[in-house]
Amino acid sequence: MSDDRNEQPLVPALGRRTLVGGAVKLATVAAASSLFEASAALAEVDPPGALRVPAQLIPVPRSISPEAQAFLAQAAKMPAPAAAEPAVTDKAAWRARVAAMDKMFDPMIDRLLANPAKVERKTLGGANVCVGTPDTMRHPDRARMTIHGGAWTLLGGRYVMGEAAEAAAEAGCTAFAVDYRMPPDFPFPAGLDDCVAAYREIIKAFDPKKVVISGPSAGANLCAAVTLKIRDLGLPLPGAVGMMSIPADLTSAGDTLNTNRGVDVMLPRPLDTAIALYAGGHDLTDPYLSPLFGDFAKGFPPAFLQSGTRDVLLSDTVRMHRKLVSAGMEAELHVWEAMPHASFGQSAAPENREVHTQFLKFIDRHLGPR
Amino acid sequence: MSDDRNEQPLVPALGRRTLVGGAVKLATVAAASSLFEASAALAEVDPPGALRVPAQLIPVPRSISPEAQAFLAQAAKMPAPAAAEPAVTDKAAWRARVAAMDKMFDPMIDRLLANPAKVERKTLGGANVCVGTPDTMRHPDRARMTIHGGAWTLLGGRYVMGEAAEAAAEAGCTAFAVDYRMPPDFPFPAGLDDCVAAYREIIKAFDPKKVVISGPSAGANLCAAVTLKIRDLGLPLPGAVGMMSIPADLTSAGDTLNTNRGVDVMLPRPLDTAIALYAGGHDLTDPYLSPLFGDFAKGFPPAFLQSGTRDVLLSDTVRMHRKLVSAGMEAELHVWEAMPHASFGQSAAPENREVHTQFLKFIDRHLGPR
Repeated sequence: MSDDRNEQPLVPALGRRTLVGGAVKLATVAAASSLFEASAALAEVDPPGALRVPAQLIPVPRSISPEAQAFLAQAAKMPAPAAAEPAVTDKAAWRARVAAMDKMFDPMIDRLLANPAKVERKTLGGANVCVGTPDTMRHPDRARMTIHGGAWTLLGGRYVMGEAAEAAAEAGCTAFAVDYRMPPDFPFPAGLDDCVAAYREIIKAFDPKKVVISGPSAGANLCAAVTLKIRDLGLPLPGAVGMMSIPADLTSAGDTLNTNRGVDVMLPRPLDTAIALYAGGHDLTDPYLSPLFGDFAKGFPPAFLQSGTRDVLLSDTVRMHRKLVSAGMEAELHVWEAMPHASFGQSAAPENREVHTQFLKFIDRHLGPR
Repeated sequence: MSDDRNEQPLVPALGRRTLVGGAVKLATVAAASSLFEASAALAEVDPPGALRVPAQLIPVPRSISPEAQAFLAQAAKMPAPAAAEPAVTDKAAWRARVAAMDKMFDPMIDRLLANPAKVERKTLGGANVCVGTPDTMRHPDRARMTIHGGAWTLLGGRYVMGEAAEAAAEAGCTAFAVDYRMPPDFPFPAGLDDCVAAYREIIKAFDPKKVVISGPSAGANLCAAVTLKIRDLGLPLPGAVGMMSIPADLTSAGDTLNTNRGVDVMLPRPLDTAIALYAGGHDLTDPYLSPLFGDFAKGFPPAFLQSGTRDVLLSDTVRMHRKLVSAGMEAELHVWEAMPHASFGQSAAPENREVHTQFLKFIDRHLGPR
């Protein structure tokens, strides 16, 4: 051990990821039930060059709206998430968990469904899609395909109806919200295949240049993946894409997964289990799973990327942006102050609305008549 | 005290900013030498809604170049900065400190001066300016005005010669590096006045649309401030500006000043003293001191903003970007993975070069013949 920081007083165990050292280190390694766990424990003990950051008391910033401040202050009081998630193999437990968590979103879904739009369920090329038609159709030539978030497991079904209503109403065009198949029953590539199938049908009715694909979180991952797949299949690219708080690298190499750990109140738990559920044993470096590893020099539509300074997926977002820019593609990065993963939750923070406003302006710049 | 997190075990004091509570709190307040300090101590004890983040061990990310990884690993071993800075009123101590710190940059300055360019010192409108002429003049119609960083106090003199050489060589045009007056002897607005004076002279020889102004850190602050002042004076705006790791809000409301505290190895110390030295008692919300508070709807040149996910001034950068975008101005945000304030130091990380490359492309897009 050449790192002389080992000589410093031990940092006490304060977090979920216990920091250990000295005598404790040997005990940890001895207690590990496998060589793999022992290595992992050692790595946790003393990653070469790791930075020790002391415990912090992070005040609510004055630099955001009062609503966003209230959201962060409230979230700071919430207990840490329960330690246990079901095992990846326990499908029944995951189904129950998904049902219970989805139910918590009912009030939000009611609000989304109150948007001035009609929604009907359809099957497009075999995929379940909620089609939203706005009461005021401002852009009959445009189609908006949305891919919902929820860690590849949550927010299917009724939520997608609400998403279609909001997407159609705010964009003033037909919205196609894909209710894609999800784990535990349908791991990768089922959801991706559904998105491809829906897009194939959409471009039979709309000029691809007038189609925009977007999504938050897991939906952003699928948005990037389906766009790469569309291109690889030789299908015409959509006119624009929007990726909000994208998990672009499922190998979880992004630095803010560590630096914003505990700071991001929207994603307090690592995505590891969700990723394992979704990937279903496939190679995580496959660009259809981790779009960051795609070859963007082969072409990609103009892209809008959103994140927040408190987002654990800020790194994935900026890495995706740099990858696109380096490949010569058109890509806009928008990062909101102190915003955690995806948004300030379901609060009335104007920053949440501003993300939509800026993305709608981006759509107009790329899909509108110039 | 309504925050029930007070009931939790106290977080031990691990950092420079000691967290105190319970019995310790009263002792701290009693020891404070003024009502102001007492209030500050209380605020530190229990900001309403503050988030407690446990001590973290942040590994070196795999997501950056080997050179950048080596830089972060090395920096993680460096001792925390000495606690004491001279008092703001102790000019002699500050002069000595500046001289000692500037000397540490001599090897870097030698490298900068090795760029293929000639540099001479001139006086432009009373301001000291180092004028760089590249050995290969690719853009005789362009002028690049640079404003150096260094917390408004450091890197004057010989460093500015080196900056002029690099700026001229890499941009292939004449470079004007302003050796602006600085504290402790010349607080605000002396440095800003020098930048305005230099610009007035530059646009007598160059079409303003062919002038780009840029700078890192304190230089970015001055770049934004001088651009606002140029506009307010009714002078023609430059063709483009570049602001790298900008301290845009000297009231220090930016959230990453807290969330990246201890994570950003380039700015381990708060800028409070440097700000006090520079501001010299002026209102910190003056847009010439804190450009974030400027009115950008009145016009601003196309802007390039750079930061890193580990930058304590990431918040200031993204807030400045949002302010410009909201005002309808053209502004590009570029954030580098795991990069601390300004750059990966003096390392050979390709990311450092990439920042320059992307900014030079931006200059070409906005100053070049279209």
